[in-house]
Amino acid sequence: MQQSRGSHRVSKLALTFAMIVWAAVVGTRGAVVAEQASDTPSAVMPQYDGQRNLRLPSDYRQWILVGQSLGLSYSEGGGGHQMFNTTLMEPTAYRHFVQTGQFREGTMLALILQGIGTNALPARQGQFATDVHVVEMAVKDKGRVAEGWAYYQFGGPMAGGYQSAAAPQPKASCYSCHVEHAARDNVFMQFYGLLKEATPPGK
Amino acid sequence: MQQSRGSHRVSKLALTFAMIVWAAVVGTRGAVVAEQASDTPSAVMPQYDGQRNLRLPSDYRQWILVGQSLGLSYSEGGGGHQMFNTTLMEPTAYRHFVQTGQFREGTMLALILQGIGTNALPARQGQFATDVHVVEMAVKDKGRVAEGWAYYQFGGPMAGGYQSAAAPQPKASCYSCHVEHAARDNVFMQFYGLLKEATPPGK
Repeated sequence: MQQSRGSHRVSKLALTFAMIVWAAVVGTRGAVVAEQASDTPSAVMPQYDGQRNLRLPSDYRQWILVGQSLGLSYSEGGGGHQMFNTTLMEPTAYRHFVQTGQFREGTMLALILQGIGTNALPARQGQFATDVHVVEMAVKDKGRVAEGWAYYQFGGPMAGGYQSAAAPQPKASCYSCHVEHAARDNVFMQFYGLLKEATPPGK
Repeated sequence: MQQSRGSHRVSKLALTFAMIVWAAVVGTRGAVVAEQASDTPSAVMPQYDGQRNLRLPSDYRQWILVGQSLGLSYSEGGGGHQMFNTTLMEPTAYRHFVQTGQFREGTMLALILQGIGTNALPARQGQFATDVHVVEMAVKDKGRVAEGWAYYQFGGPMAGGYQSAAAPQPKASCYSCHVEHAARDNVFMQFYGLLKEATPPGK
């Protein structure tokens, strides 16, 4: 019986130990799940300063490419200053779009306007995008403007330097044209070949 | 002794269970550490199949934009098929470049060639990039080719569909021109306005 009691104690200890360890496993697994969840980054949202001006995000140059154009102009007449226009989309809003086909609240698009270069070897023809002239943004945020989408100009090296924050443009300057002509929810999808291809089927 | 033997069995079972569970905890903690490490992404490297052909990465459309051009051609004569050419860079290699000015071993660049669209309202002038025609890649990997940089063609919807893996192009097809004309380490930086701006000063 002495041996038996000892065995009982050992078995109880071992079982208790096993239960503690099991709890640790479950706890740790919870941590792993949380870790994995944080790999799916939460929605990045527009940031405003004290005057409710939109802050220029620090990392917009690393956003996801959705469209490129050259010399796109709304005016009938020729002879305007042509530029490369490139549209980038904030990555968490991009991933939401790829899953749902929707521009969620807080979606940010950056438009980068660049100069045109030619005649650099080995290219004997064609045009390439050179230095950045100005940066603009389109943001969907009903909390900021009642109509939902607002448009911002941040200037750039060719426009007196970058501004760290900008007020929305008047509604008539950008919004009215976007709401009239945009292929999808105020966004000129008709110019965004890559975003079209990333749209989920049937959405 | 019957009970004692039973207790022995229980205690052994419990201890074995505890040890298995403990091993699981250690294993799981290892997974957590790996998970955290992946938050500071380690260098993403090119992947090859059994024939040492480069696999087309699944996420290259979400890489970082470094350059855009239209109708860039190496030939003297005109009249060739013009396209929008866009170069994207794998993000961990991009961040290494932004810090050091160096294209590290394993750097991957994707070149996307797209058709040209015109006359879509509200644009009355200009050209925009439409559907993807073909995808190519440039990869720096001395382990794959002795000269360091290799160039790959993955086809696309306008070239019989995408290939999931590709062999390097012959050295004379791409490498020779790149090594002669590239502004920096076989990369045509002269066409990459955004990458130029992202180069650290003095590097």
